Amino acid sequence: MISKQMQQEVAGSSAIRAMFLEGKELAGRIGAENVYDFSLGNPMTPVPECYNQAIIEAVRTESSMELHGYMDNAGYEKTRQAVADNLNQRFGTEFEAKHIVMTVGAAGALNVVFKTILDPGDEVLALAPYFGEYRGYVANHQGVLREVKPDIPSFQPDLADLESKITEKTKALILNNPVNPTGVVYSEKTIQGIAAILEEKQQEYNHEIYLVSDEPYRELVYDGEEAPFLTKYYDNAFITYSFSKSLSIPGERIGYIAACPWMAECAQAVQGLSVANRILGFVNAPSLMQKALVKAIDARTDVDYYDRNRQLIYGKLTELGFTCVKPQGAFYLFIQSPDKDEKKFVEAAKKHNILLVGGSSFSCPGYVRLAYCVSYEMIERSLPAFEKLAEEYRRDLR
Amino acid sequence: MISKQMQQEVAGSSAIRAMFLEGKELAGRIGAENVYDFSLGNPMTPVPECYNQAIIEAVRTESSMELHGYMDNAGYEKTRQAVADNLNQRFGTEFEAKHIVMTVGAAGALNVVFKTILDPGDEVLALAPYFGEYRGYVANHQGVLREVKPDIPSFQPDLADLESKITEKTKALILNNPVNPTGVVYSEKTIQGIAAILEEKQQEYNHEIYLVSDEPYRELVYDGEEAPFLTKYYDNAFITYSFSKSLSIPGERIGYIAACPWMAECAQAVQGLSVANRILGFVNAPSLMQKALVKAIDARTDVDYYDRNRQLIYGKLTELGFTCVKPQGAFYLFIQSPDKDEKKFVEAAKKHNILLVGGSSFSCPGYVRLAYCVSYEMIERSLPAFEKLAEEYRRDLR
Repeated sequence: MISKQMQQEVAGSSAIRAMFLEGKELAGRIGAENVYDFSLGNPMTPVPECYNQAIIEAVRTESSMELHGYMDNAGYEKTRQAVADNLNQRFGTEFEAKHIVMTVGAAGALNVVFKTILDPGDEVLALAPYFGEYRGYVANHQGVLREVKPDIPSFQPDLADLESKITEKTKALILNNPVNPTGVVYSEKTIQGIAAILEEKQQEYNHEIYLVSDEPYRELVYDGEEAPFLTKYYDNAFITYSFSKSLSIPGERIGYIAACPWMAECAQAVQGLSVANRILGFVNAPSLMQKALVKAIDARTDVDYYDRNRQLIYGKLTELGFTCVKPQGAFYLFIQSPDKDEKKFVEAAKKHNILLVGGSSFSCPGYVRLAYCVSYEMIERSLPAFEKLAEEYRRDLR
Repeated sequence: MISKQMQQEVAGSSAIRAMFLEGKELAGRIGAENVYDFSLGNPMTPVPECYNQAIIEAVRTESSMELHGYMDNAGYEKTRQAVADNLNQRFGTEFEAKHIVMTVGAAGALNVVFKTILDPGDEVLALAPYFGEYRGYVANHQGVLREVKPDIPSFQPDLADLESKITEKTKALILNNPVNPTGVVYSEKTIQGIAAILEEKQQEYNHEIYLVSDEPYRELVYDGEEAPFLTKYYDNAFITYSFSKSLSIPGERIGYIAACPWMAECAQAVQGLSVANRILGFVNAPSLMQKALVKAIDARTDVDYYDRNRQLIYGKLTELGFTCVKPQGAFYLFIQSPDKDEKKFVEAAKKHNILLVGGSSFSCPGYVRLAYCVSYEMIERSLPAFEKLAEEYRRDLR
């Protein structure tokens, strides 16, 4: 038999798979065009054409050993420099290639960071609601995840709760900005507040508390919003990033870690990241994708596509009386469940062929997540179904 | 500070880096053409042209979301089917797509397997001499690595020692075939012997003992040799593979796990692999490379290139009196150190500008590894240096 932990994980993933199959079965029965699947957070826009061109050009012009060969575990120097230059231009930071480690996506990056900083039993704080995978990433390296409550209805973190949760064992705080599942962008005031608390607790406990930022949605922001760049506010910070969303290439597994140049023992920390990349079996970020990035790092997928969706669905749902923080980033709405038991609401929505994910998956029961990275037409088609659903909950809505 | 474990790992990797820098310094001082660097096991032959063509064609013809998008964590169905078909044709096996999980190289594959099968404290046996990274891969998942002695001079495993090392806690045996660092191919007799012992111990302890095979060198075999295909001899077997060597694309991080269809609870085990791929942060094998594989899975790099090198260097070193098992696969020679302290021999070789790696790195002191994945011309140029080195050890050689 496989390990006890994995038996449990398989059972859990079977539940998700059952939901997926149920959706497929529904599509087969009533037609895919009549199922309104808002359950998956997968990018929907095409890759920028210049990125594909950069791939073809690299294959045509680079020597094969350079193109597909091993390089330093941290990545090609030129790619790391391109990432550093890109960040410096946009955020006025002072990264050099030596502060950047290329990774197998953001999921790879987070595992590399946790492998590098966590001793067994170390605690990592996460700001609820948060991406459920964080729990696994922390547990992989024998860390313990502790949750911090959100301030409601803003869904900024509750800073008093954050302060109370920090102990002698706290080694890191992970935050996602913009946030999956709420679409909230943590404000500069929030980031300053977090930084001040962590600074004070570092003093009190006399060891580093790292801020680990997961930023795959950085470029998916609306209304002129911008997520504050963490290394301007706090030194012991790792920024983890994936090009999955900004370039719409989630299957290619390419991202990076940027270590704040002013962090404690920065050179040792970056070398740790590089070694962890190797030991965990990533070895390095895929080489051809690193090559293509050098030429196309400024390319962006079509953010307006998601913005149009956002305006349509947010406008309609609030009009119908649903309560929901207005998202400024990512491609999610986090809707207050009109039924106290969100699972019942998810089931009720399903009866109208609307597929949503319960907030319990993000450690925030009483809410549901709607992912609007779908076609505009599907949202339009779904509106009458939302009307019927709202009608059913008339007395519980605003 | 980073974690205690990673502080140690960084210190260790700094030693390797120091060696690397020393080599660079030497090249700067006396000219790169006068340094004979046999220390690195990196492929040296170009990628087959049809593989690059397959990449370009995929970029040109596939829809972007299909090309660079997410897929099932186990990989594209078509790629998994191509792997299954390829194995079935070559080895008469009965794999289906559902037994294959595409991975981020073999290093990723091994971590996924260990995550799937190991409970904390479980023991994994490794056959010395073995690739040093195995220790880290097992420790990542809180397993404990135990070593099995080789039979010398054949460098097949010592089966009596293997039998004595199996305990109630043994969950797996990892083997590499052909072997890094010896170039030995484990014979059918060896594999049958291992299988018989494991079968008996499974009965005795009443739980599965998995055979985990690491086979990146499968196609790098010489003199008509072929490594036995494990699933023919043992049911509870995972084959892990990387295309790094056969296609000369180590930087692209693409490989797979093939689970024996007859293993216990096979469906659950494969689902476990798929979930582990996700939780560990690999998520999936790079998508474009999966697409290219469908068209170019039969392509091979130039194995004759390595064979010519093998014959030249093996012939010369044995002629000079060095003792070395004749390699039938991979691209390594494992030479008995004429000095009891192999480190002294490594130093002596360095004085003649020959860079080798001590056997202690492979848990087999008293030997050195020579990697002949270098240019034929470099081997030719190095021969006078080996002559001088042999002269120095005249009394200790055959």
